[in-house]
Amino acid sequence: MLRMKLIISYDGTRFSGYQIQPNGRTVQGAIEKVLQKMHKGEPIRVTASGRTDQGVHAVGQVLHFDTTLEIPVDGWKRALNTMLPEDIEVWHAEKVSDDFHARFDVKEKEYRYFIWNAVSRDIFKRNYQHHVDQKLNIEAMKIACNYLTGRHDFTSFCAANSNVKGDKIREIHHASIDREGEQLIFQVRGNGFLYNMVRIIAGTLIEIGMGKREPEEMKQIIASKDRANAGHTAPAQGLYLWKVYYKK
Amino acid sequence: MLRMKLIISYDGTRFSGYQIQPNGRTVQGAIEKVLQKMHKGEPIRVTASGRTDQGVHAVGQVLHFDTTLEIPVDGWKRALNTMLPEDIEVWHAEKVSDDFHARFDVKEKEYRYFIWNAVSRDIFKRNYQHHVDQKLNIEAMKIACNYLTGRHDFTSFCAANSNVKGDKIREIHHASIDREGEQLIFQVRGNGFLYNMVRIIAGTLIEIGMGKREPEEMKQIIASKDRANAGHTAPAQGLYLWKVYYKK
Repeated sequence: MLRMKLIISYDGTRFSGYQIQPNGRTVQGAIEKVLQKMHKGEPIRVTASGRTDQGVHAVGQVLHFDTTLEIPVDGWKRALNTMLPEDIEVWHAEKVSDDFHARFDVKEKEYRYFIWNAVSRDIFKRNYQHHVDQKLNIEAMKIACNYLTGRHDFTSFCAANSNVKGDKIREIHHASIDREGEQLIFQVRGNGFLYNMVRIIAGTLIEIGMGKREPEEMKQIIASKDRANAGHTAPAQGLYLWKVYYKK
Repeated sequence: MLRMKLIISYDGTRFSGYQIQPNGRTVQGAIEKVLQKMHKGEPIRVTASGRTDQGVHAVGQVLHFDTTLEIPVDGWKRALNTMLPEDIEVWHAEKVSDDFHARFDVKEKEYRYFIWNAVSRDIFKRNYQHHVDQKLNIEAMKIACNYLTGRHDFTSFCAANSNVKGDKIREIHHASIDREGEQLIFQVRGNGFLYNMVRIIAGTLIEIGMGKREPEEMKQIIASKDRANAGHTAPAQGLYLWKVYYKK
């Protein structure tokens, strides 16, 4: 038995999210289907660093699975990419030790949220960036980002309907926002994220950029531990699971 | 009776081309359906500057149609965008004189062809750029572009199965290729284009960039007036009808 680690990208547009479900096209379902074919009908379960919601993209999602197949590493990548649908791409495959775990061994995750900040929408970006037509004050958003870093109870940025086990304390190592022409990129890295956390933070930052809230409110929102005080949940299509970092 | 001119963008990915057909989702079909609704069931025929094939995009396609509805110009744009599917966008609407014709009055058209020239494909670009993994020699492609401008018989760059009426002489006013990082952009403007002409030119340029052909062959290919001497037809997803220029 051999444990394989994959790094994959996917375009979330046409998936009902990462996690397998009885109805709906999922990333996990598409990958397990291909692996089952490669294993002559034997079902293979894959484990990801975490799930992503419907419409959310991934540039560097990480998976592991166990196999008895003896295939060179390059062969895995080629075989999977040949059989997978065009909206999933395996860009790295490697053999790892038996005790590697794609979810439990995560040290840090990076997400990016893309905003297309222009008067006109761009239909070619409609599934890949969140369009905001009102001019956003990026300086105010930068100030607000500073309040996010550090170890906090992020209850205010957790979807009210989530059933997180354990506490809602997470550590954000980096949070920044930059403008490249009409594109705004919010980058956030941390040791873990609650359900909808990045999208609620993005939605709150957008409201700050619009002048509906002061940048300093970010601090009070965190302290209040109340979802009702944060902004709206920004739409899925702007969000990318960018990179997953592992222990050792 | 009032004649309206529209400038529209569309993402060609999920359309079976521009032109209406009995089966298949088309841009013309989607627009005429919305106009018919706005005109309480009366069918309205739209005329475009020309058709685009399945998978080909438009940034500045131009249409005209006649209407008896009295709607302010801004209202037209808003109403159409509200009712049209998310992969079509009207970004300009204006009243024009009765004798304006979106096809017959064309003076010049501009197309752009986008190549993603990188070792790895980028799944987020799969429907919007043509991926070429072999490094392309852009200097050779630039030299080849110079042979395209001017008045030529472009039979060599016309799909063999086309039934063009009249001659195949067209005038190219501008042809250039530029690199922006891993992206190559071919821009071409001319008084008219034959069926698949831009895609066959792009395919030939790519073969020149790969070193399979010398840049000077472009001149001989044109002179031969034989489709068999030109390169392959580059795929649809890299092509954009960029802008249409009119007389007066």
